[in-house]
Amino acid sequence: MKLLYPTSLYLDPSLLTGFPTLTLHPYDPRAPTIPDDLLDATILVTWANSPQNLRHAVNFMPNLRWIQSLAAGPNDVLAAGFDPAAVTITTGSGLHDRTVAEHALALLLASARKLHEMRDFQTKDEWPGHLGGPQPDRPAGAFTTLRDARVLIWGFGNIAKTLTPYLTALGASVRGVARSAGVRGGIEVFGEDKLPELLAETDALVMILPGDESTRHALGKERLGMLPRHAWVVNVGRGSTVDEEALVEALEGGKLGGAALDVFETEPLPKESRLWGQKNVVVSPHAAGGRPQGAEALVVDNLRRFFAGQTLRNVI
Amino acid sequence: MKLLYPTSLYLDPSLLTGFPTLTLHPYDPRAPTIPDDLLDATILVTWANSPQNLRHAVNFMPNLRWIQSLAAGPNDVLAAGFDPAAVTITTGSGLHDRTVAEHALALLLASARKLHEMRDFQTKDEWPGHLGGPQPDRPAGAFTTLRDARVLIWGFGNIAKTLTPYLTALGASVRGVARSAGVRGGIEVFGEDKLPELLAETDALVMILPGDESTRHALGKERLGMLPRHAWVVNVGRGSTVDEEALVEALEGGKLGGAALDVFETEPLPKESRLWGQKNVVVSPHAAGGRPQGAEALVVDNLRRFFAGQTLRNVI
Repeated sequence: MKLLYPTSLYLDPSLLTGFPTLTLHPYDPRAPTIPDDLLDATILVTWANSPQNLRHAVNFMPNLRWIQSLAAGPNDVLAAGFDPAAVTITTGSGLHDRTVAEHALALLLASARKLHEMRDFQTKDEWPGHLGGPQPDRPAGAFTTLRDARVLIWGFGNIAKTLTPYLTALGASVRGVARSAGVRGGIEVFGEDKLPELLAETDALVMILPGDESTRHALGKERLGMLPRHAWVVNVGRGSTVDEEALVEALEGGKLGGAALDVFETEPLPKESRLWGQKNVVVSPHAAGGRPQGAEALVVDNLRRFFAGQTLRNVI
Repeated sequence: MKLLYPTSLYLDPSLLTGFPTLTLHPYDPRAPTIPDDLLDATILVTWANSPQNLRHAVNFMPNLRWIQSLAAGPNDVLAAGFDPAAVTITTGSGLHDRTVAEHALALLLASARKLHEMRDFQTKDEWPGHLGGPQPDRPAGAFTTLRDARVLIWGFGNIAKTLTPYLTALGASVRGVARSAGVRGGIEVFGEDKLPELLAETDALVMILPGDESTRHALGKERLGMLPRHAWVVNVGRGSTVDEEALVEALEGGKLGGAALDVFETEPLPKESRLWGQKNVVVSPHAAGGRPQGAEALVVDNLRRFFAGQTLRNVI
């Protein structure tokens, strides 16, 4: 039985050995096709595959029973046409928690401390004196620090659980929103029906929603209008969850403090987007994750489950 | 007995009451002079005073026995000519720990995640694709994340102790350098004689040194040369501690990854400085602190000690 692993990142195949009937084969996921001698594989590990590569796998790998994506959201695998009813698809959920949480923290701090505005001044060889020297401490109606800031995390999975202790250590008060309410990792997580009250009490909204039809434009004109005028939006989930047209209008109308975005409705962000030129928009090029960590351990855990006939982890 | 408190920040005078012989009087520290009817005061609290204001106090306040600065380093008080042998001078050390630590973390994360480079692309409506998408995880010879990064904090006082848990939570390994070696807050702190070995094993150097003659150009050409070529320098201490000429030469010679600087040899940074145009220099306008927190509690603790005849806190 063949497992194909991608050469688009460094994986140590010696960490995947030990399953007697399994053989391991590297493949180039950016090539247009899977090599002929590997088309009879049973298991395909994907990372940064080209669309052609995945379409070739859909059409010419009849024995495929399981695809292990290393991405948190395997939109590319689904878009290629794999049928989750016929082939088990598992995600790389958990492999990106720390990298995405770190980037979210970087964007939050940079927004609060106005590093983007400092850079704009630096580009002109100008000292942004209004951002330095003696300043009011935590002025009302401004997002200037995480200390005592009210942070709302919408989409409260593993990334949120990783991010939360960083925020509370810095003095923020954190609440969550998710489909199901409850207490997770010591944080109160509310259902989406509570969004009107929660958004009104938010200094920084962190979006970590997955991208599917149910989350499309989850943050649109109406909910943007519920945020205080000084609030910032940070999106490290999927670009489709924010209505960018409504976001630009809120920003231009002075109804929102700013937005630090790592994901966009279309990526790369098109030249004609009005987001580029917004003073208080930070454009980050889908850089939060992209570096799976501990991938071998996830694959091994799922291999053991696979051979034992047990349910795999992270099945979509 | 009169205590003068500054109107350059919000202080709640009701939190300073309760000492029977003491009267509290607000004054404008930006005015060129101290008002005549307040010149007989015994205690002066300073924050963001103008140089003229302090010089006036030196010359016309004969009863002054104690100056409580709210700054971490009261260079302005000393520069005005007060004699620490005649007037007790206490600093605001501790009032800036969280704000400066937060800014240091912001600069570290922004440097690792290349937010300044992203901004430069955004200014041109360009997508910095090389900084996003699938990336190597923790590549050798680059500072791309705090996870597993080797952070050296030079100047290991209260700000460092506040900063350290943030860094370790993000996965960094932290060591310190100070005049006296030892273990502080669970972190190994080495003497300056160990700098050659320590600098060679550093991905990010955080400078939090005070500014006096003994620390002038502490980081100069020789020590910069001990850092790996990919290392970043973050300075949130005092600008005089870094030899900017040597720093620019190291950067232009490709011998250093970059520098995120909140303090400079001359502030505001002069137009002619070569730091402005360095691709991997982040210029922050002395914005790390500037927002004393908990000032009333420090003043009250020192008032109690003052009236009890005990040693004050933070005497220089």
